[in-house]
Amino acid sequence: MDRAALERYAELIVRFAANVQPGQIVELGSEIGKEELTRAVAAAAYQAGATHVAVTYDDLHVKRARILHAPEAALGFAPDWVRRQVQELNERHGASIYLSGAAEPGILEGLDTDRLGRDRSPEAVDWQDAINARTVNWTVVPAPTAAWAGMVHPGVAPETALERLWEQVFHVCRMDEDDPVDAWRQRSGELQTVARRLTELRLDSLRFVGPGTDLTVGLLPTSRWVGGGERTLDGIEHMANLPTEEVFTTPDPARTSGVVRATKPLEMGGTTVRDLQVRFEAGRAVEFTAASGADALEARARRDEGGSFLGEVALVDRDGRIAPLDTVFFDSLLDENAASHIALGSAYETVEKEDLNRINRSEIHIDFMIGGEGVSVTGATAAGEEIAILTDGRWAFA
Amino acid sequence: MDRAALERYAELIVRFAANVQPGQIVELGSEIGKEELTRAVAAAAYQAGATHVAVTYDDLHVKRARILHAPEAALGFAPDWVRRQVQELNERHGASIYLSGAAEPGILEGLDTDRLGRDRSPEAVDWQDAINARTVNWTVVPAPTAAWAGMVHPGVAPETALERLWEQVFHVCRMDEDDPVDAWRQRSGELQTVARRLTELRLDSLRFVGPGTDLTVGLLPTSRWVGGGERTLDGIEHMANLPTEEVFTTPDPARTSGVVRATKPLEMGGTTVRDLQVRFEAGRAVEFTAASGADALEARARRDEGGSFLGEVALVDRDGRIAPLDTVFFDSLLDENAASHIALGSAYETVEKEDLNRINRSEIHIDFMIGGEGVSVTGATAAGEEIAILTDGRWAFA
Repeated sequence: MDRAALERYAELIVRFAANVQPGQIVELGSEIGKEELTRAVAAAAYQAGATHVAVTYDDLHVKRARILHAPEAALGFAPDWVRRQVQELNERHGASIYLSGAAEPGILEGLDTDRLGRDRSPEAVDWQDAINARTVNWTVVPAPTAAWAGMVHPGVAPETALERLWEQVFHVCRMDEDDPVDAWRQRSGELQTVARRLTELRLDSLRFVGPGTDLTVGLLPTSRWVGGGERTLDGIEHMANLPTEEVFTTPDPARTSGVVRATKPLEMGGTTVRDLQVRFEAGRAVEFTAASGADALEARARRDEGGSFLGEVALVDRDGRIAPLDTVFFDSLLDENAASHIALGSAYETVEKEDLNRINRSEIHIDFMIGGEGVSVTGATAAGEEIAILTDGRWAFA
Repeated sequence: MDRAALERYAELIVRFAANVQPGQIVELGSEIGKEELTRAVAAAAYQAGATHVAVTYDDLHVKRARILHAPEAALGFAPDWVRRQVQELNERHGASIYLSGAAEPGILEGLDTDRLGRDRSPEAVDWQDAINARTVNWTVVPAPTAAWAGMVHPGVAPETALERLWEQVFHVCRMDEDDPVDAWRQRSGELQTVARRLTELRLDSLRFVGPGTDLTVGLLPTSRWVGGGERTLDGIEHMANLPTEEVFTTPDPARTSGVVRATKPLEMGGTTVRDLQVRFEAGRAVEFTAASGADALEARARRDEGGSFLGEVALVDRDGRIAPLDTVFFDSLLDENAASHIALGSAYETVEKEDLNRINRSEIHIDFMIGGEGVSVTGATAAGEEIAILTDGRWAFA
């Protein structure tokens, strides 16, 4: 990626996606292997008036060493200052940018899945608090690496693979438009309209039917659909994900039932879960099977009670830019925006007050893709009326 | 560096230099470009029983962006969590390992020296507190990088330069001994003996005389000489520096006078100060001249009142392994152990209680080398007796 293009992308991330304001502190979560984009984003954030950019380079080799060698007490432990970072971001109404994309695919494969499941950092809870308090303007954006490109495009030369991944990322981030911000405002508007109309339908449940899938997901009486960008308490508009093509809401965790087959592999912090199938009974994920990685996913899900219940259901139509690429990105940020999906674990508070005590709580939040070709979605109202929602990947309701 | 040698070095760092204990949290300060050694050290620390290894990869490109673009309020600012990290290490009696060596030489050159001087992170104060409280077993060790090697050995091919730097680092760290730990115990014993005898001399001042140098450094009545490793409150022995060849003490900040010429270049976080000369009057550094970098050094020194006064004086003989290499490493850790040196800024509390209120206080601590060939050191007692201390780089007192 040439310097000028990288800087334009960094500008889009800072000025539009995170919408960093003068005087804000900015957390910038990166990984070894993403230095160039990290530096461009940090520079853009300071140019936007940030008073501090706290860059964190994660290194999964260190996590691997912990799982392999550390005493039991080290798993899932973090000193207070790690949680303070998230809490202070919340208190000071800071901004957060996370650069997604595997830098070390497969590095956690073959490790003890029980230990992996217990090694979840406690600040995830503080993050969920900050998100629900809507104090932080945050975004997650893709950052191509050579290793990630090799996974997505295994058949070609490394430089070609990386070039192709960058092209795809720029395409789905609408960086190939004359005015990417304007293009995003338009797409956001469409998603906001779909979300509003879905909310107005007041559905009691959704049913997904397709190969290997017949799943019913109950909704709460006040479940509100959201899509196309968010707004903090202070009125700062931001894109929690860039790209985003989804509308989502918070389901009733007690009313998921049936079987669902994932339609894309799930890349989960170094482990790839392939051909996943999950069976739900009375809301609970009671059985996980997969060609690989089922143990790792189940260990994560069993970390706490809420980890086995749904915290999110999201719908994606085929008008987005990701699905037509027909590419598995092994990264939830991109793959979840190609297809309808559900998430085990914590819920966003997209319900009214009276339902807040019914939404799912957990330290985990793991999305996996269940929509795509051959999967139809219908809704049912409390009165028993059935309404086609997504047919052949197109919105089917007026 | 081959894997096995890297792992043996990591073992020396963790088990001997920092002496990490089971159940300790460990701060591991690194930099982009030092990933391999960082990972080996993290793994060795977990194997030693650490319950958390907090790896921080610094990136001077981010600092450069801050100096170039950030609002004034960003300079010298850090959120509370950054200071909490050091404070918590102090409270929990953790361990700290810092990997030294330039990863990006010259990256801060040409920047606004006033802004650079103001951009000092406030946690330096907390570090000084932790060191003086002797709660943390800490070490600073060299980590070769290609960029650093190119600076030290500019005339040869990059791979050769890196190989040569690793060889030198292994030699000065006594990694080429059959039993490096035993070799270190022996050298430490020698330095401890010299330090004890220097303390017994009860010197009132030291005088350095050589080309461009005639400097008198007053000492405090209870100044205690220290060398060859330290011990925490809890009795954990550690090497604050590896390698170490110095004995040092805390001077009387009010009684430095004369002129001193640095005998090695000073690498200061991306800026190289060459051919430095400093004039002192009544303790205060009143004039800085240099072929390059004088402004940057002076801006740092002027950050607070104590930054213009001495906090350390250290003596190095020629029996160490660094001086005979006749190499400028552009890194204080190695260069300061090749030659006698002084430091502007904060003092270690190597005095008895009655002199604690007289030692120098500052947020900075900058060592520069003033000893070497042609520089002799004599001491004077309060009674006026003169004693030769270092002549031709050899201890001259009985």
